[in-house]
Amino acid sequence: MSILAIGSIAFDNIATPSGRAENVLGGAATYFSLAASYFTDVRVVGVVGEDFTAEHENVLKKRAVDTRGIEHAKGKTFRWGGQYLDNLNEAKTDFTELNVFENFHPQIPPEYKDSEVLFLGNNHPSLQGAVRRELSAIKLTGGDTMNYWIRSANAELRKTLRLINILMINDGEAKMLANESNLPRAAQKVLAMGPQALVIKHGEYGATIFFREGAFGIGKHPFRAPALPIEEVKDPTGAGDSFAGGFMGYIGSQENLNREVIKRALFYGGVMGSFAVEQFGTERLQSLTRPEIDARFQVFRELTHLE
Amino acid sequence: MSILAIGSIAFDNIATPSGRAENVLGGAATYFSLAASYFTDVRVVGVVGEDFTAEHENVLKKRAVDTRGIEHAKGKTFRWGGQYLDNLNEAKTDFTELNVFENFHPQIPPEYKDSEVLFLGNNHPSLQGAVRRELSAIKLTGGDTMNYWIRSANAELRKTLRLINILMINDGEAKMLANESNLPRAAQKVLAMGPQALVIKHGEYGATIFFREGAFGIGKHPFRAPALPIEEVKDPTGAGDSFAGGFMGYIGSQENLNREVIKRALFYGGVMGSFAVEQFGTERLQSLTRPEIDARFQVFRELTHLE
Repeated sequence: MSILAIGSIAFDNIATPSGRAENVLGGAATYFSLAASYFTDVRVVGVVGEDFTAEHENVLKKRAVDTRGIEHAKGKTFRWGGQYLDNLNEAKTDFTELNVFENFHPQIPPEYKDSEVLFLGNNHPSLQGAVRRELSAIKLTGGDTMNYWIRSANAELRKTLRLINILMINDGEAKMLANESNLPRAAQKVLAMGPQALVIKHGEYGATIFFREGAFGIGKHPFRAPALPIEEVKDPTGAGDSFAGGFMGYIGSQENLNREVIKRALFYGGVMGSFAVEQFGTERLQSLTRPEIDARFQVFRELTHLE
Repeated sequence: MSILAIGSIAFDNIATPSGRAENVLGGAATYFSLAASYFTDVRVVGVVGEDFTAEHENVLKKRAVDTRGIEHAKGKTFRWGGQYLDNLNEAKTDFTELNVFENFHPQIPPEYKDSEVLFLGNNHPSLQGAVRRELSAIKLTGGDTMNYWIRSANAELRKTLRLINILMINDGEAKMLANESNLPRAAQKVLAMGPQALVIKHGEYGATIFFREGAFGIGKHPFRAPALPIEEVKDPTGAGDSFAGGFMGYIGSQENLNREVIKRALFYGGVMGSFAVEQFGTERLQSLTRPEIDARFQVFRELTHLE
């Protein structure tokens, strides 16, 4: 199944203990699309400015990502600067320039209307909801959000959550959304808001998926996938979006959605996140091979597998 | 193999969002011994005061823990008070009264001298080292320490680490000991200080074991076990010591130490930690059955197991 990914395309300035990078291609939709492209066909919808060149677009095209949904607007592309000098697990934002992203009204090209899997990258929940409603062939919607929308657009977010099948957020976002400090209880409260499944990303500790009772016909027991203990994290930017890309990409590559597929998808999410952090920006995600990915999947499996 | 556990025996005052408990039996040696008692013979060395009654000792005796190594001293038993009202993952200490524990000089009863597995509960590293040197039949030593000793007795701790085969500490302790914020790199630095293996306890995210190259003849790839997402954590006190008890207890119950045994031990550690937090103090650890424990082991296995 083809995946339609919608979200930010950006240029990032990044500082980590391993070094610095400026004006590197980033954004949720970029990381997601590259990661998912190793599993299935990916179509992307986003907006860029005049500083986004054919060379930038080729990064996606080389991975066979369909870029017809990228809108070229007047002005500059979304820019973000952040650093992880004190803490690799949390970015300290230096600046955010929304630029053309500020007035982004996603246009879905007609050629994308038959998409069956949708990923709603972090964005205003009203925009996320509008995109979902516009697409009638969608069988599965994954989505992300963040603290900012939980606080400032809570009512709109609640509406959009009813349209999302699998929500993917981190521990802090889940606790804030549920107003509950115990994670499994927070998960149950979030599931009661609409999603059938909730993936909580724990950063270096992996991720857990919680299910609403009866969701996908596979029972409600949670499942947990590890993250790889990585000695050399060069740049954590995009790890969560790459996780989402691996997770949704693997699901999109399978005919049926069952518990085993979702479990493997969670592992593939971790795999793609682990590759993303090995180099600055999207560099590592541009040049992988499926055998490399599957070899690392086996490493992840061994990491928690009992005979 | 019999396990000799040495460490604190205490009375705790605990406040959590689920309620309060006062003067409940606690201490690292108590939690460890009860948890390990479901797997193998356990002998305990510790010190108590005149407020420690036969009824308290019976909690251990009922689990067939050999209590001949408990020294009864004049004065009061070690007392600790803490709360988890804001954060279930970290205790806020209200008071610590060392009492008889302050001048504790562990005496090993002659009947214990043939012990083959040793657990050195958190204590001054010089005392831990002295105990280890006194015992000649030991095949495997597990040990714990804490930030206080890392700061105030670092040189002594470094000596003792050379006597410990498997060190069990949490993320913060590992990072402080290694002076390194990246966890896998911190693990490598700690392993270079002496231990053949390092278990890093991640609280609600489980635990990872790292191996020195060639340790136990089983290669150096880390292994990670999950923790159970628990909606009702009544009292986190003793979870880490119960983890250590399950981990060392299972190892003590096996004839050979190989990778599969260590992996299962890490899961059993998580299992015993998950039981410990279900009730205040040691209550839940007093009344378990091995079938209950093995059923939960299967739940842990299912939590991360791919077909």
